[in-house]
Amino acid sequence: MKTFVFETYDLMSERCADIIVSEMLNDKRVNLSITAGNTPKRMYEILEERLKAVEDLSHVHYYIFDETPILNKNNEVVRNDSYDIFLKQIMKPCKVKEEQITRMTDDNYMQYPSIIENDGGLDLMLIGMGADGHFCANMPECTQIDKEVYKVKLSNEFPWNEPYQKTLGENHSEYMYTLGLPALIKTKRVILIVNGESKAEAVKRIFNGPLDENFPVSYLRLIPNLTILMDKAAASLL
Amino acid sequence: MKTFVFETYDLMSERCADIIVSEMLNDKRVNLSITAGNTPKRMYEILEERLKAVEDLSHVHYYIFDETPILNKNNEVVRNDSYDIFLKQIMKPCKVKEEQITRMTDDNYMQYPSIIENDGGLDLMLIGMGADGHFCANMPECTQIDKEVYKVKLSNEFPWNEPYQKTLGENHSEYMYTLGLPALIKTKRVILIVNGESKAEAVKRIFNGPLDENFPVSYLRLIPNLTILMDKAAASLL
Amino acid sequence: MKTFVFETYDLMSERCADIIVSEMLNDKRVNLSITAGNTPKRMYEILEERLKAVEDLSHVHYYIFDETPILNKNNEVVRNDSYDIFLKQIMKPCKVKEEQITRMTDDNYMQYPSIIENDGGLDLMLIGMGADGHFCANMPECTQIDKEVYKVKLSNEFPWNEPYQKTLGENHSEYMYTLGLPALIKTKRVILIVNGESKAEAVKRIFNGPLDENFPVSYLRLIPNLTILMDKAAASLL
Amino acid sequence: MKTFVFETYDLMSERCADIIVSEMLNDKRVNLSITAGNTPKRMYEILEERLKAVEDLSHVHYYIFDETPILNKNNEVVRNDSYDIFLKQIMKPCKVKEEQITRMTDDNYMQYPSIIENDGGLDLMLIGMGADGHFCANMPECTQIDKEVYKVKLSNEFPWNEPYQKTLGENHSEYMYTLGLPALIKTKRVILIVNGESKAEAVKRIFNGPLDENFPVSYLRLIPNLTILMDKAAASLL
Repeated sequence: MKTFVFETYDLMSERCADIIVSEMLNDKRVNLSITAGNTPKRMYEILEERLKAVEDLSHVHYYIFDETPILNKNNEVVRNDSYDIFLKQIMKPCKVKEEQITRMTDDNYMQYPSIIENDGGLDLMLIGMGADGHFCANMPECTQIDKEVYKVKLSNEFPWNEPYQKTLGENHSEYMYTLGLPALIKTKRVILIVNGESKAEAVKRIFNGPLDENFPVSYLRLIPNLTILMDKAAASLL
Repeated sequence: MKTFVFETYDLMSERCADIIVSEMLNDKRVNLSITAGNTPKRMYEILEERLKAVEDLSHVHYYIFDETPILNKNNEVVRNDSYDIFLKQIMKPCKVKEEQITRMTDDNYMQYPSIIENDGGLDLMLIGMGADGHFCANMPECTQIDKEVYKVKLSNEFPWNEPYQKTLGENHSEYMYTLGLPALIKTKRVILIVNGESKAEAVKRIFNGPLDENFPVSYLRLIPNLTILMDKAAASLL
Repeated sequence: MKTFVFETYDLMSERCADIIVSEMLNDKRVNLSITAGNTPKRMYEILEERLKAVEDLSHVHYYIFDETPILNKNNEVVRNDSYDIFLKQIMKPCKVKEEQITRMTDDNYMQYPSIIENDGGLDLMLIGMGADGHFCANMPECTQIDKEVYKVKLSNEFPWNEPYQKTLGENHSEYMYTLGLPALIKTKRVILIVNGESKAEAVKRIFNGPLDENFPVSYLRLIPNLTILMDKAAASLL
Repeated sequence: MKTFVFETYDLMSERCADIIVSEMLNDKRVNLSITAGNTPKRMYEILEERLKAVEDLSHVHYYIFDETPILNKNNEVVRNDSYDIFLKQIMKPCKVKEEQITRMTDDNYMQYPSIIENDGGLDLMLIGMGADGHFCANMPECTQIDKEVYKVKLSNEFPWNEPYQKTLGENHSEYMYTLGLPALIKTKRVILIVNGESKAEAVKRIFNGPLDENFPVSYLRLIPNLTILMDKAAASLL
């Protein structure tokens, strides 16, 4: 792990954008798995601005790294959470066409690691983390740290489930699947971005304390090529 | 080769800076061989600004890719042209300390490729090109295209030598050495930056026409991972 | 280039088999492009013996590196020369199933390099060479040294064409296509095997003399990771 | 992890030798970290036979992956256990010269991972394992699974210590240091060899059951490129 701390969220976002742009300006197929969410919001604004000037990005391929199907009352899948967020937040700034996206589905999730391998492996993953220590959908109480991919049946024995289900209104979700630690270990380069004081305590546990399956980011220290970009607030307890 | 054309010299310089910064923010030793000269001037201004916020860059190592010792009237070496320019143009913006630089010298130039190999190989070379078709010090009339490194005795049979010697005032140079095409082929990633209408004709010959030892950039098409960044003017004849 | 000379053809074949087996015993998809012909005959006998004890080789994929369609009197394709030889010589000893083979065809040959790239690139190419200086189907008088793949219309202006057509009896061939030097440059590891005194003169020209498009193996010196295995006879003029 | 099971110890040893020879016949600096001990004994016999025919192996470099200094009654270091065994078992068959060996010492062990990184990283590690679940010197009761390198003070609270000390006669050892899991994760290719029924139970726990710091080989499943070669006896409980 190498850590770079920036004075502001904006500076952190700019340097993260440097890395993503740099991967895109490559003379070969590029396989990216990049997170949506709050942390990278400013980064995608910067990317949108920068990529306006870049015409051909058809050699860049995207892999969704986790998925939660959302069901209606009749248990019919009405949408897929991660894919939806990808469409909303990443497609436009990165000029992604649908054929450049590989999704995780009920049918392919167990083969997802070999799909990635057969496409030449992931060049870069960009991940965030939660104050509860999760990364991707490796959540406390249900992470299978030695699985390259796995499925979790959602249940209220997980403290984070009820609040999540509430955000879904009249819909609900029953299970999710996610790439796990071995998939990140295989990725050529992993970038973690974190900002804000609310995550400072969790950030500390990336570096110190025991490996703990109930605090999954503690395992990130096993990733062979991980760069952590954070703002001063997130680094305040280091 | 993948080519990206930008509206302006400034945009080209920014995207090139993205790539250099991205290499630096890596969780491992990074070996760079990056050019000085006119083309990257704006890029180094941008780097200087961006790298202010980055504290530790001690894992980044620099390799000078060619050298021309400058002699006084008594044939004593008074300075080394490439190293001098590196010190002036690159050290400050990239926050380089002297121990991070590996130089080419009379004593080591034949071993330079194995020095690089024993340090893990070059991660990135950033090169420019001349309107006469040169890259690094692979000049028309004297390029040995199949040599990883070689020495050239300077002579007025080369059209570019007399003008060069004149720039040296009362000093002169008698020979130079340079990395050649096989060294670039071995580098994980090569970036070529070009700007300005005066190079448009030369740029055309990177892509079209025969491989020509007297127009060395024609051989760049053999490099396995080469990204070309140029402004609209340089691309105007494509 | 690193060269290893062995006392006998058998020893050379054994060490070459070591390399092929080693690639196969990998924990990942393996992409091979390996030559048939006379030189590797003993090597495939050794492989057959060794691979009897290896059950699962389904992760190994094969890419034919050149092709010559054979036509009957009515100009209908009756067979494909390289593919046929692969089936006869390589399938059984290497336990290859048809779905593990990617072929070059009239329809896909221009996309062949990107097919390979999208499968993660070639891990290893094993090539032979001719006393006339050819490798793959990069033949004297018609090699396009800067093309990753290209098609050649066969013609009697090439000295080697008439003898070749005679071997085809009542059939004939009108064109062929082949991977070229840039494809070998991109391959992670290239192995050249050569045996016999009849090739000693040609072997010399790999190392010495000018780059010469009419003696294609002279260009092998540009390949970044090339191991040459030969017997004493082939090395006799070095 | 990919696993290959062979009928006999001899066949396992031959295929392991294929891999080691293949790494050695490379056109570049090669960095190996290969185990001594009982399991590879036959393999080194095979290597000795095969490498007789290979003249120049000066590009192959060796890194000792753990070390236990042996002290006399006056607490003076009289020898180093791993280095001694390397000299006895590996030097001759592999034709190693002393300058090709990098050792772990009291002075350098904390810098050992960066020494390796500055030499370009390890290309291959060959490891064995114990029936007690150890690999390298990652022993039950004292493994620090998230450390790239670490030192252990030997103590009789470890069940394996007393028997070990007894083998040392009038000498003793007070501490050891070893590369840990993150160093193996960073290595391009890791080979584990295991033979014999006595290890069948331990082999099972590589694949099944929880990650367990007191059974260190359970963590091998996190290594991105691990090939396991075993004989039928070791695989008998799979």
